[in-house]
Amino acid sequence: MINQLVANIKKTGAPIVVGLDPMLGYVPQHIQKRAYEEYGETLEGAAEAVWQFNKEIVDTTYDLIPAVKPQIAMYEQFGLPGLAAFKKTVDYCKEKGLVVIGDVKRGDIGSTSEAYAVAHLGRVQVGSKTYVPFDEDFATVNPYLGSDGVNPFLKVCREEQKGIFVLVKTSNPSSGEFQDQQVGGRPLYELVGEKVAAWGRELMGEEYSYVGAVVGATYPEMGKILRKIMPKTYILVPGYGAQGGKGKDLVHFFNEDGLGAIVNSSRGIIAAYKQEKYAKFGESAFAEASRAAVEDMAADIREALKEL
Amino acid sequence: MINQLVANIKKTGAPIVVGLDPMLGYVPQHIQKRAYEEYGETLEGAAEAVWQFNKEIVDTTYDLIPAVKPQIAMYEQFGLPGLAAFKKTVDYCKEKGLVVIGDVKRGDIGSTSEAYAVAHLGRVQVGSKTYVPFDEDFATVNPYLGSDGVNPFLKVCREEQKGIFVLVKTSNPSSGEFQDQQVGGRPLYELVGEKVAAWGRELMGEEYSYVGAVVGATYPEMGKILRKIMPKTYILVPGYGAQGGKGKDLVHFFNEDGLGAIVNSSRGIIAAYKQEKYAKFGESAFAEASRAAVEDMAADIREALKEL
Repeated sequence: MINQLVANIKKTGAPIVVGLDPMLGYVPQHIQKRAYEEYGETLEGAAEAVWQFNKEIVDTTYDLIPAVKPQIAMYEQFGLPGLAAFKKTVDYCKEKGLVVIGDVKRGDIGSTSEAYAVAHLGRVQVGSKTYVPFDEDFATVNPYLGSDGVNPFLKVCREEQKGIFVLVKTSNPSSGEFQDQQVGGRPLYELVGEKVAAWGRELMGEEYSYVGAVVGATYPEMGKILRKIMPKTYILVPGYGAQGGKGKDLVHFFNEDGLGAIVNSSRGIIAAYKQEKYAKFGESAFAEASRAAVEDMAADIREALKEL
Repeated sequence: MINQLVANIKKTGAPIVVGLDPMLGYVPQHIQKRAYEEYGETLEGAAEAVWQFNKEIVDTTYDLIPAVKPQIAMYEQFGLPGLAAFKKTVDYCKEKGLVVIGDVKRGDIGSTSEAYAVAHLGRVQVGSKTYVPFDEDFATVNPYLGSDGVNPFLKVCREEQKGIFVLVKTSNPSSGEFQDQQVGGRPLYELVGEKVAAWGRELMGEEYSYVGAVVGATYPEMGKILRKIMPKTYILVPGYGAQGGKGKDLVHFFNEDGLGAIVNSSRGIIAAYKQEKYAKFGESAFAEASRAAVEDMAADIREALKEL
């Protein structure tokens, strides 16, 4: 699946992932109204609104982008109907040829971690039959529990040719509380990065590993070091746009081949119509605003990558 | 909800939580057969088998125990039908007067972490209506992202009088890879423990805080230190039984009042009928075997607590 991701990035020339994190506040009134008319102001209604919102954004941007990253929390908050909308979104994006990164940040140990891996990347056995539960292409994984938490994911990735992105240095202001602590003369996130590189060596695709890393755009200097520690690791970079990261901050997350990183933007794209810059589209053409925001983001990153 | 947990523990005299982590391999053949006859060998069939298994164990043990801890991964692997069985289990256990700890190990940042908190402990707004999505009493939380990840949970806990257990030192062999790293002269898990104590001071119940910690039974010496660092923190202790922890290892997780810790056993109880010790019950009386295992575990811990 890492090969597919790299191929999609080469094809679109845009190392961009659109974060499908639809808070209800982002969903235009006319979509919410239509959904509530059909399903009432229920969890089913909210899930339908979110799904229709996603669908229109995907229909309007899929030719420009290699991948999407639905954030499962935003669906989980609407209970079972919300998770049904998550699954529908995953399936639809795959039909459109997009690589789907399930931003699930799961992590546990042993058979429990394996159950998560099966849920999101694998297949589950029921009697004589097998099923694919959520079937994303990649999942994000939390490393706090160590190798016992990650190895079951590696096992499923190997079987299914799928991948993971392990949290190394997250984009939020307080990520340093634990991640930046000095251990043996270097910060903890470097140690995690070394582990990611080691896990990744066991599971190589053509150019890059099936084991990726998450490193926030808000920490470009750390990105520079982590890039060197994990040369064959794809880096998923959140924090661009709304969280403050800019194109020029991103250069060092990439390798000299212009590959090796994929930059996420969520509300900066899906709620672009709420920004002054794209206000001219209006709420009804929200998806066109998202398309314009994708084009601007791709141009910003392409410009920055000229420095490579 | 911490007050309810403490009250339940005092009433039963058993600081025990039963981990409802039903792998299909644990579910007796006659239950699987019945479920597949009704739903086929489908995700629905697997979910039904898991739910019937849980129900019988809960019906047979609820008077002896204060709480249960369903592990959501084991349900998530059966997709939406599995998550429906999770929700049904949560609701049923609450009807039976049990405190429900959702072992979800979620953790993200900002609005995403808030969405997880809402999903598992809170209520979500849809138009003019509000809904409770999964509605556990407690959730387990991964701290790797720092305060940005935990604060949204604290907010929802305050609103809903619910609680969390933050992973501090997990029970698995490789937990030391990151958690034991020395930072400023002490291991990382102690720093996390200090943070848990600080978060907990903001959210106190009558005797203990709404913010608990997870510390594995397999690391009793670390439990001793963490007990002192977090005096008002309830410690959820996994790793008893199948993972190797014994009653005598548990003493130092408790305070002198005999409170402050609750010990989890999952397969040691729910799959007790597979152990030689309880084989006499046979597969058909699997729930009676679980009851006997609960009684033995409670006696083991009571014996150990005499040392306090």
